Amino acid sequence: MSEPIEFYFDFSSPYSYLASEKIDALAAKHGRKVKWKPILLGIVFKTTGAVPLTQAPMKGDYSRHDFERSARFLDVPFKLPEKFPVATQAAARAYYWLHDRDCALARRFAHAVFCAFYVAGRDISDTATVLNLAAALGVNEEELATALAGQELKDRLRTEVEAAIARGVFGAPYIVIDGEPFWGADRLPQIEQWLETGGF
Amino acid sequence: MSEPIEFYFDFSSPYSYLASEKIDALAAKHGRKVKWKPILLGIVFKTTGAVPLTQAPMKGDYSRHDFERSARFLDVPFKLPEKFPVATQAAARAYYWLHDRDCALARRFAHAVFCAFYVAGRDISDTATVLNLAAALGVNEEELATALAGQELKDRLRTEVEAAIARGVFGAPYIVIDGEPFWGADRLPQIEQWLETGGF
Repeated sequence: MSEPIEFYFDFSSPYSYLASEKIDALAAKHGRKVKWKPILLGIVFKTTGAVPLTQAPMKGDYSRHDFERSARFLDVPFKLPEKFPVATQAAARAYYWLHDRDCALARRFAHAVFCAFYVAGRDISDTATVLNLAAALGVNEEELATALAGQELKDRLRTEVEAAIARGVFGAPYIVIDGEPFWGADRLPQIEQWLETGGF
Repeated sequence: MSEPIEFYFDFSSPYSYLASEKIDALAAKHGRKVKWKPILLGIVFKTTGAVPLTQAPMKGDYSRHDFERSARFLDVPFKLPEKFPVATQAAARAYYWLHDRDCALARRFAHAVFCAFYVAGRDISDTATVLNLAAALGVNEEELATALAGQELKDRLRTEVEAAIARGVFGAPYIVIDGEPFWGADRLPQIEQWLETGGF
């Protein structure tokens, strides 16, 4: 039995969202599972010195245009939210809390967060939005709210982000298949060939 | 008659080399021509504040690995030269000088420079190498050497790079089809669909 594919992403990363809409089906086609791991690009960029794409001189305007074109190319609904980029701590912490309880539910929650942000344009940096999205999936809102306010879950997310950085994750989406890293939604065709052929 | 596709590249950019091996055939398939325009990423990065990929923390190792994997994926021979990245002023200046005389010859010269660097591992920053590559294509070496030493050709390259920056070119390869910009060799599939459908 192969190890699951690792999928590192930030809820505020458009290319992460695009990859999130494709990676499970791509993996399933080749009998593979995917382990989703939300991270915080803000912390990663403190290590690498990188700047968010939309804030990079000249690249910013291009990237906003490319997000939308790439979404059309991949046939994924997408609208850049008015408030962008946003902090994704609450969403990422909620994901890990849910994942420890029910990993299928955590996956549905992750899709719901991406969809709320990139389709409905909701502010996913707001803890109330995160709680609302979880509640719509049947999660006990009060329990989650308590966990989100606690130190344990904060530490958990910090540990996950530090582990990702230690593993070499410098951007998102960052997908690892049997130790082979692929950065960016535009590596999906290479990922597909890698899964088909076992490496090239 | 459509305008030619613009192909901005730096001879020292691996992804530019990969795109250079594909762009003419892709364009020809859709009855389009390509205008090649060597630029200097070093000057571009002074404007944008970007750092060369291989010198970026963490991204450096990944990118070296990705150059080779992407070349295999695209079925293009590739070996990262020992001396890399290199200054490409001489090659770029020679390209424009040749282009003003014989644009087909300039195209053959550009391929020869890329091949010398990424297949044979030669030092294309060396003016002697550039002259040698041109001479092998029947160019008068002495005339080219005189032009390369002159101010006019230096100014010409500077003007071309400044025009590219003014046009929004922030990296390479940067391909423009009827005003629509595509950055990176990984946008070749989008370029293909754009040419097929006239936009999406």
